[in-house]
Amino acid sequence: MSRKVLIVGAVALGPKAACRLKRLDPSAEITIIDKDYLISYGGCGIPYYVGGDVADIEGLYSTASHHVRDCEFFEKCKNVKLLCRTELISIDRKAKKALVRHHDTDQTEEMVYDQLVLATGATPIQPPIPGADLPGVTVIANLHNAIRVKDLIAKGKVDKAVVIGAGAIGVELAEALTDLWGVETTLIEMMDQLLPPAFGKDMSRLIENHMTGKGVKILLSEGVTHILGDEKTGVTGVKTNKSEIPCDLVIMSVGVRPNSQIARDAGLAIGMYGGILVDKRLRTTDPNIYAGGDCIEMTHLVSGQRIPMPLGSLANRQGRIIGTNLNGGWEEFKGTVGTFCLKIFDLGIARAGLTVKQAKDAGFDPVYALVAQSEHAHFYPDQALMYIKLIADRNTRKLLGIEAVGSKGDAVKARVDAVAALFQYNASVSGVSNLEVSYAPPYASAMDVVNAAGNTLENIILGQNIPIDVADMVAAFDQKKVRVLDVRGKIESQSFIEKYGDQWINIPQEELLDRFDELPVDQPLCLLCDTGPRSFETQLFLKSKGITNTRNIQGGYGMLMLSYPEFIPD
Amino acid sequence: MSRKVLIVGAVALGPKAACRLKRLDPSAEITIIDKDYLISYGGCGIPYYVGGDVADIEGLYSTASHHVRDCEFFEKCKNVKLLCRTELISIDRKAKKALVRHHDTDQTEEMVYDQLVLATGATPIQPPIPGADLPGVTVIANLHNAIRVKDLIAKGKVDKAVVIGAGAIGVELAEALTDLWGVETTLIEMMDQLLPPAFGKDMSRLIENHMTGKGVKILLSEGVTHILGDEKTGVTGVKTNKSEIPCDLVIMSVGVRPNSQIARDAGLAIGMYGGILVDKRLRTTDPNIYAGGDCIEMTHLVSGQRIPMPLGSLANRQGRIIGTNLNGGWEEFKGTVGTFCLKIFDLGIARAGLTVKQAKDAGFDPVYALVAQSEHAHFYPDQALMYIKLIADRNTRKLLGIEAVGSKGDAVKARVDAVAALFQYNASVSGVSNLEVSYAPPYASAMDVVNAAGNTLENIILGQNIPIDVADMVAAFDQKKVRVLDVRGKIESQSFIEKYGDQWINIPQEELLDRFDELPVDQPLCLLCDTGPRSFETQLFLKSKGITNTRNIQGGYGMLMLSYPEFIPD
Repeated sequence: MSRKVLIVGAVALGPKAACRLKRLDPSAEITIIDKDYLISYGGCGIPYYVGGDVADIEGLYSTASHHVRDCEFFEKCKNVKLLCRTELISIDRKAKKALVRHHDTDQTEEMVYDQLVLATGATPIQPPIPGADLPGVTVIANLHNAIRVKDLIAKGKVDKAVVIGAGAIGVELAEALTDLWGVETTLIEMMDQLLPPAFGKDMSRLIENHMTGKGVKILLSEGVTHILGDEKTGVTGVKTNKSEIPCDLVIMSVGVRPNSQIARDAGLAIGMYGGILVDKRLRTTDPNIYAGGDCIEMTHLVSGQRIPMPLGSLANRQGRIIGTNLNGGWEEFKGTVGTFCLKIFDLGIARAGLTVKQAKDAGFDPVYALVAQSEHAHFYPDQALMYIKLIADRNTRKLLGIEAVGSKGDAVKARVDAVAALFQYNASVSGVSNLEVSYAPPYASAMDVVNAAGNTLENIILGQNIPIDVADMVAAFDQKKVRVLDVRGKIESQSFIEKYGDQWINIPQEELLDRFDELPVDQPLCLLCDTGPRSFETQLFLKSKGITNTRNIQGGYGMLMLSYPEFIPD
Repeated sequence: MSRKVLIVGAVALGPKAACRLKRLDPSAEITIIDKDYLISYGGCGIPYYVGGDVADIEGLYSTASHHVRDCEFFEKCKNVKLLCRTELISIDRKAKKALVRHHDTDQTEEMVYDQLVLATGATPIQPPIPGADLPGVTVIANLHNAIRVKDLIAKGKVDKAVVIGAGAIGVELAEALTDLWGVETTLIEMMDQLLPPAFGKDMSRLIENHMTGKGVKILLSEGVTHILGDEKTGVTGVKTNKSEIPCDLVIMSVGVRPNSQIARDAGLAIGMYGGILVDKRLRTTDPNIYAGGDCIEMTHLVSGQRIPMPLGSLANRQGRIIGTNLNGGWEEFKGTVGTFCLKIFDLGIARAGLTVKQAKDAGFDPVYALVAQSEHAHFYPDQALMYIKLIADRNTRKLLGIEAVGSKGDAVKARVDAVAALFQYNASVSGVSNLEVSYAPPYASAMDVVNAAGNTLENIILGQNIPIDVADMVAAFDQKKVRVLDVRGKIESQSFIEKYGDQWINIPQEELLDRFDELPVDQPLCLLCDTGPRSFETQLFLKSKGITNTRNIQGGYGMLMLSYPEFIPD
């Protein structure tokens, strides 16, 4: 007799596991249930649908060859039974039965399984703010809310929007509203930076300034205390601990929580973040029950900690692994390194591994380099700078994390994905210095920006390069505790000297050999060039001449300009 | 007393090693010599200079901050002595002396060294073709020839050009001449494909058709036997074993040979391809002499074989390693995986590892998958297909190679660089299936094209997917030995049925469940969909119904159209 497999959840992982198993064992009797009727959609496309890049909602639940993935499609093309509007109520593990409710008939049914797959996803956290239930306040968690919001916007009913929470979805939504609909959008975040868990404050500042430049109003270190309005007119504004912002739409995106209650009730082990615990084969503590996607916890391959990582890309890969293992195969999901990328207006950003803060929390002693370099050969036209932050452990030189920002998203992704591939092998900094990335002048430098990041970090760890962050430099400069030695040309430095007087010293690098004894040494000298290499050489040269109280400004003028535009003379 | 370091060669590796050492040990007395006066240039930029993308020759030997890298620059900014037009004649290893000739004075000089670095590069192979010394015949090996050629073109003296040799440089030059100058260009290659060592014939066919479509005339399997013309009028054409092509410029690019004669004469070990042998620290068999770049042989990390790999990117990284080791450090160059990328008109191409042919030659049993998939989420606008060929060993599943082609070069590079990072760790196919590449709809699919390549290859190795190459399918189809079952829609298949009659069968995938018994089974059925996944599912479905004589066409319609446009109905 053929085995009965029941899969709970029909968004990303569920259908993937079903189709994979069906390909391996056409005789398997597979049923997928989902409480919704909109299924098998690309949830990560929601901001693009709201924004209008994806014109038609069907695009999000169609195949690449434009088949709508509905129940009939799964029946006809995949030979998989799919029951919509059917919700899991409880699991009787001993009897291998699942109790489900059919919403259309309000009937319950006991479904027998040989193997069960939990792909129950996650639920957006709804912060307990007064007014959160007013009309015009929503979380974008599924297609229904997305359709509703887009409908409001398209009808011209939204002039001003507030997005609460500046994680990836919040940032994408703020862009979508501003860019394509011209909605006056305010993004509010409790932490003191955008994308708080994923990027360091220095890198997120680049993103913040870019978004601000595109018209998004960003409020950091602010918490929403009330949502204003009434049942009749709907939302009219939000009140924070600092200000009040009028608006007619509020979207909350403050994170998600794994849907694991039924698993917990059934006695399956649950992790400290509320995700279902699984082994490398993605089996729960019951060997007949698999789980994957947003409802589980997985091992972070750099920190070794178990955490939820609600990413559609992981869910899809896990779905295939579960399909293989359901058929008696042995495929492992070893863990995640938290790789992701985003497009934010004209910026592409990507990251993997741990941030400095996450690395400290995990017990490492993180040290980092921040480099700026053209993403392709400097002699090839149309170059633009890419910014890479590379993080490692000071003692072991173990690679911990990478964050990158640049105007060419695919090029940013290329650097991060290549380094991310190294994390699982416990690689060290020199693995990045010598990483063999492909080179041609239109796409890379012979010594590529990613290699430069490795080289710089190595120099910092060895104490050859003594850096200072742009933020620390600006703070110390404002307090007149440091001087800047600008080794660029006279023309580039002129306006700085006019603005900052003798706190700003210009000696072009090629004149230093003759003029280094002009330098005042009563205060630390912060060394500045375009992007960092010449100031590093200057630091070494000055050291050889006995001037050691210097700091090399990480990322140079490029980083300064993008991080603190107000510091730059008009 | 400070050490004396002599570096021979001032293009890529030499200056890099010098600057690195100087940073670590400012007291080192470093002298670089070069027989030329044009030094420290980006040789990989030459095609872009000839083509005009790089307008000014100085761009190729300037820094990112527009300093011309001449002798004075090295003196002032790097504190390194650089002697141009000074050539190495011989090495007296026992006495640690190098005999050099100063071309300007025609004097020789003995230079004492503590450590010597050989960065002597490679010389273009000049095939012994009659007429190769005529005016208008050149190899593009250095800036002098590049300047001469560009000068001829810019003066309008070149209407028709022939490029001999379709390696990377030949292909780039053919593009440069055609694209920017409208020169009628013929590219001649003795082998039966473009880029013969780097890409398989199937992938190079995509490149060939793209170039042909852009106006480059390509002659494969042709060898030039004579270059026609006389001393006075210069070159007038070339004669091959098959045809005669009139032209007024001939550029030869048939490969390079390591410059190792002086090293050989000095008793250093030389490899079977004529490159200097070095250890992982890049020391020759004399521990006081280092070598790197185009003049050495290095270990291929996939095949284990020692080969020359003349790439500027490797030379730069090796230069830094040599600089570190000259100072008593311990940095290793473990080897190469032969990663490189190219831009060819509107195509980006990249590769790493071994081709199928190279893998066979190295003793593997290669098997491969060729997949086509949009480079970003299929619902996001402006998608284009990327083609990836992934190669592994059948028995061990060890990853052997990757080749990729697509319209977005940075996106192509991203996939290849991430997989290339795995080669050094002896990864297997499942390492690509589960590779954690970053995902956002504008930049990737949730199940990315590179993961799909891993999945497909795994299915092929397990015998679940029984593929056929487009080339084999077309050949068998022409001989009426196979039929095509087209599971796309009626509209897409209509013109094929009109052209090919009942050799072309259309049953859309969703109708197969009801109609599979219509299928004739007297001949193999080649299964076609847009890119491959649906035809794979069809193959499994038919197998479950007892129809097993089927082949899944790799890369589907996309691959067929780009490889054999003549096969497609008008």
